[in-house]
Amino acid sequence: MTFTPNEITYLTSQPLGRLATVGPNGRPHVVPVGVFYDPEARDIVIGGVEGSGMATSKKFRDAQRHPEVALIVDDLASVDPWLPRYIEVRGWAKTHTSGGGDLGERIGAHMPFDPAYIRIHPRRIVTMGIDTDFFEVSARDVA
Amino acid sequence: MTFTPNEITYLTSQPLGRLATVGPNGRPHVVPVGVFYDPEARDIVIGGVEGSGMATSKKFRDAQRHPEVALIVDDLASVDPWLPRYIEVRGWAKTHTSGGGDLGERIGAHMPFDPAYIRIHPRRIVTMGIDTDFFEVSARDVA
Repeated sequence: MTFTPNEITYLTSQPLGRLATVGPNGRPHVVPVGVFYDPEARDIVIGGVEGSGMATSKKFRDAQRHPEVALIVDDLASVDPWLPRYIEVRGWAKTHTSGGGDLGERIGAHMPFDPAYIRIHPRRIVTMGIDTDFFEVSARDVA
Repeated sequence: MTFTPNEITYLTSQPLGRLATVGPNGRPHVVPVGVFYDPEARDIVIGGVEGSGMATSKKFRDAQRHPEVALIVDDLASVDPWLPRYIEVRGWAKTHTSGGGDLGERIGAHMPFDPAYIRIHPRRIVTMGIDTDFFEVSARDVA
């Protein structure tokens, strides 16, 4: 199994994740995104609300040209004491320009999806404070 | 002036930003970081709390080898209605292995800094909902 049950729960527990892509000249780009889990494919879907222009966004164009991406979902379990936790997923992105609407319904998205979406196939997962203690980092290759 | 007054206020208003770097083989990495503004240098400092091992972190090693980085600071001004806002800073990173302690004090960090820190010199700034309306993106080159 790619993700543990706690990781799956955590991945979709936050209102936003942040997706890092690499653009022309090797320059990174990072932007807040909606993060969804596809239980059939066991991978991650980055969907935009209908009409958000996903297909023309920089993240989408970057991922088309350069499929290596990284996604972080994180929060503070507590501010005092300072208890950060996160899951970082590094992997390959595949961009899709159609089918997002049906996919969004199937995976229970809380909004109508744009036809275009990004699917992330995980290669390496790094977590802290999810299945481990706070400040204890766990990393593994999954592909 | 590189940053507008509203951008400076916003940059340090959130508990965390997320820094994207590029590692070997052009693979991106993204991780939550503490974001600080240096009013003398008019640039951004990524500092870690003393003892956090900043100098051996992947973000630090990535930035040493590949200085192009991107930083995002974002939040939801409101969840209902959904009003996201953000500032993305793309630029050049310079890594420092000493001097963080004094720097942290000078810029009023709320914690003792690790000696190692990263300074980000902005090249391009992209914002939404800071000096513009929500969902209106503004982008400009600053170097």
